Amino acid sequence: MLYDKDNWGPAPSNWTRPHLLGLEDLSAEEITLLLDLANRFRNDVLDSPDNKRKIPLLVGKAIVNLFFENSTRTRTSFGLAGRRLGADVVDFSAATSSLSKGETIVDTAKNIQSMGIDGVVVRHVCPGAPQLLAKNLKNCAVVNAGDGTHEHPTQALLDLLTIRRRLGSLQGLSVALVGDISHSRVARSNIFALLKLGAKPIVCGPSTLVSHYWEALGVRVSHSLDDILPEVDVFNLLRIQFERQVVRPFPSIREYAHLYAMNSERLARCKKDALILAPGPINRGVEITPDVADGPQSLILEQVTNGVAVRMAALWATLTAAERNAQ
Amino acid sequence: MLYDKDNWGPAPSNWTRPHLLGLEDLSAEEITLLLDLANRFRNDVLDSPDNKRKIPLLVGKAIVNLFFENSTRTRTSFGLAGRRLGADVVDFSAATSSLSKGETIVDTAKNIQSMGIDGVVVRHVCPGAPQLLAKNLKNCAVVNAGDGTHEHPTQALLDLLTIRRRLGSLQGLSVALVGDISHSRVARSNIFALLKLGAKPIVCGPSTLVSHYWEALGVRVSHSLDDILPEVDVFNLLRIQFERQVVRPFPSIREYAHLYAMNSERLARCKKDALILAPGPINRGVEITPDVADGPQSLILEQVTNGVAVRMAALWATLTAAERNAQ
Amino acid sequence: MLYDKDNWGPAPSNWTRPHLLGLEDLSAEEITLLLDLANRFRNDVLDSPDNKRKIPLLVGKAIVNLFFENSTRTRTSFGLAGRRLGADVVDFSAATSSLSKGETIVDTAKNIQSMGIDGVVVRHVCPGAPQLLAKNLKNCAVVNAGDGTHEHPTQALLDLLTIRRRLGSLQGLSVALVGDISHSRVARSNIFALLKLGAKPIVCGPSTLVSHYWEALGVRVSHSLDDILPEVDVFNLLRIQFERQVVRPFPSIREYAHLYAMNSERLARCKKDALILAPGPINRGVEITPDVADGPQSLILEQVTNGVAVRMAALWATLTAAERNAQ
Repeated sequence: MLYDKDNWGPAPSNWTRPHLLGLEDLSAEEITLLLDLANRFRNDVLDSPDNKRKIPLLVGKAIVNLFFENSTRTRTSFGLAGRRLGADVVDFSAATSSLSKGETIVDTAKNIQSMGIDGVVVRHVCPGAPQLLAKNLKNCAVVNAGDGTHEHPTQALLDLLTIRRRLGSLQGLSVALVGDISHSRVARSNIFALLKLGAKPIVCGPSTLVSHYWEALGVRVSHSLDDILPEVDVFNLLRIQFERQVVRPFPSIREYAHLYAMNSERLARCKKDALILAPGPINRGVEITPDVADGPQSLILEQVTNGVAVRMAALWATLTAAERNAQ
Repeated sequence: MLYDKDNWGPAPSNWTRPHLLGLEDLSAEEITLLLDLANRFRNDVLDSPDNKRKIPLLVGKAIVNLFFENSTRTRTSFGLAGRRLGADVVDFSAATSSLSKGETIVDTAKNIQSMGIDGVVVRHVCPGAPQLLAKNLKNCAVVNAGDGTHEHPTQALLDLLTIRRRLGSLQGLSVALVGDISHSRVARSNIFALLKLGAKPIVCGPSTLVSHYWEALGVRVSHSLDDILPEVDVFNLLRIQFERQVVRPFPSIREYAHLYAMNSERLARCKKDALILAPGPINRGVEITPDVADGPQSLILEQVTNGVAVRMAALWATLTAAERNAQ
Repeated sequence: MLYDKDNWGPAPSNWTRPHLLGLEDLSAEEITLLLDLANRFRNDVLDSPDNKRKIPLLVGKAIVNLFFENSTRTRTSFGLAGRRLGADVVDFSAATSSLSKGETIVDTAKNIQSMGIDGVVVRHVCPGAPQLLAKNLKNCAVVNAGDGTHEHPTQALLDLLTIRRRLGSLQGLSVALVGDISHSRVARSNIFALLKLGAKPIVCGPSTLVSHYWEALGVRVSHSLDDILPEVDVFNLLRIQFERQVVRPFPSIREYAHLYAMNSERLARCKKDALILAPGPINRGVEITPDVADGPQSLILEQVTNGVAVRMAALWATLTAAERNAQ
């Protein structure tokens, strides 16, 4: 069943960016516009009461998933978002690409663009890779799906959408990002957006993973989860990114879990309606215990659903802006 | 060209299962219903006289191929079946998945479901993995594409459909499963279904690969292919699953082929119309010689075509049942 | 937006080949027919003024990309071409295929065909593999996407289309193929087609990579790029195929670049309008310097765009011919 696109209306004219590279440069209005759009995709299309879960807004458009780092989850989410909009989605994995023949990333991207691609979703280990592509591609939208430890804008947007759908607004909320902040592009994108939307972010974790640098931006820093439990509205429990760490930042996983895992004992000391978020994949028993992950305050699977909605919004907004710019 | 779905009619109301996990639990009526449906897909869509080989019964539905074991063949067959029904099909391979980051299979499945997936086709080395997913997923069909040495229901259904299309009925037929029975989920699914539909299965192979356990279920056991040649209506020649064996079950491949390969000399001692089936990929010269594999009694490629039809039937039946249950 | 296929007209009746295996056997008329068709796809669909970049000529058809050698670029180009024609495209990678279970390539292909595939795009390290498949498949088009050092017809066609779109005709043009001629299927396909269309090909490179064998076919051989600079209309700068070489054919990459790289100094000694082509991926600084690759005479990215158009033409022509033959 297809949603009648004539009932949907045109893309928002006050969104003019052909690329979504990060949240640091967006205004509060732009972030709110994307969240509103994503919320509409969630309500009207993904949760369509009459099962019209596909809306042909991007028919004839081609999108390439250009993933230089492995990620089935984010790649699948973007792939589904593109397909629900009627676009053709092609996966381009680094392992089998011409990069192993010595091609530069810009040449790879220009080649892809020359094949008539309308949008590129890129994940790369190097911070700034999406910016580099955006500078070099014409008439082609670039959406950052994670660049090194820099930004991961759609992940932060889906976190915000999940909070907003439950609590109405982000204004004045105390949101704790717990765990591996220094290696986390998710934390960075979240902090930029939370500050713009009037929330009060706290970063929390061992001193080896949470720098005091953030205080200069107006973010509170805490090294004790137990201390902040009673005052936080939303906990976002980040994965320990073992794969990004060179030196071991804490003595053992057990010690980390002892100090920072969200478990039912800690949850009992939180506000009654405190929300639990976590960007998957979760490590059960490390940053979160199973009873909390599967409990009534956990919004982890809501985040996944909202992720498809956010990516539909990001793809539609950027591809239509890129098309307008081309004219 | 698209087949007009209004001419097709609704999904069968007497199929109520949202999952197809195995044939052991199905009734003869349910198996027959799937075979009838598959036969219709084969005749009217795949062999469409006016080339209308796509029927938009599952437009707007998303199906994920969740393969934790490699299988291009079965994955491609399911992928084509889904696309011929108009669904969006996304491949999710284990090698690049978050499982390497420590995620449990249930978490992976719940995440996929939360992305708005309507059906999961799963292959896994562990018997019971599809059951585990089915128990944990809501409003999402699960189709077993092979779980360890347990079941492979669509393979058995395509075997049965191939026999039925040629011989009209399975009632009273003598069907020999030859080869590696103890490691074969194909053999198990076939035996369950053959017994229910009134056929007389024989399992045949060296004693290291064919247990007498089967006799308790009413299956005849033979260790000599030559002995049973004259009385069998259908031979299903299974691959030796070298990749599943810990101890070598016979002295050499040459010795196995000497005793159990179907060759033209043996075929001459069979019933004149005996049929030859084999679930690919075949090892030419091991369980079957090329002249037999490519000869007029071989239905090996018919099986492959019927495989797409069976998977269309399985996907349509389970996804529509899952949708009815959700309402 | 979809292009109205009724405005497009039927497939050319004077194209009768169900397969495109190479250019050696095609007539000048057949090559011209494919180029004309590709040019129309480029102008009317890919560069559609009203963004109708998808034309449903192959709806209901299924195409498999059967790549036994890695190639994201060519695979993606064929994939996009098929999707722009409305076909379902399925990737079949060798790494995860049943070939590792001992299946022959012909059995693999017959299995794929039995799944109801209408076209196979094949790349294989063995020269002749596409011919072998074409001989063994019925009612299924085979398009060669590169077989060993033999042919790569769609690459040569896109080279020719790129030249023709710029210069109007190939008649009498001096076209130099520079680099690794002996390992290059691109060079072979180009030479066959250039000779048929009245151009004058020159092969140029070190004697270890450019055999005098070509002279027998009417191709000029040169070992000095500097000698031929002033007279050449089009330079096609081939990659050094390090991955295909057993013995090192020149002392160092630096020495190769010194003698054969197209740089701005050499370009200044060429005809004022000389064109630069290169089948990607390019090695910047080896066969071409960045200023030339990105300069106004370079048509490298035009080639990529024309590649999609050529593959649309090849798929549409062969699949419709295969369908006519089946009737």
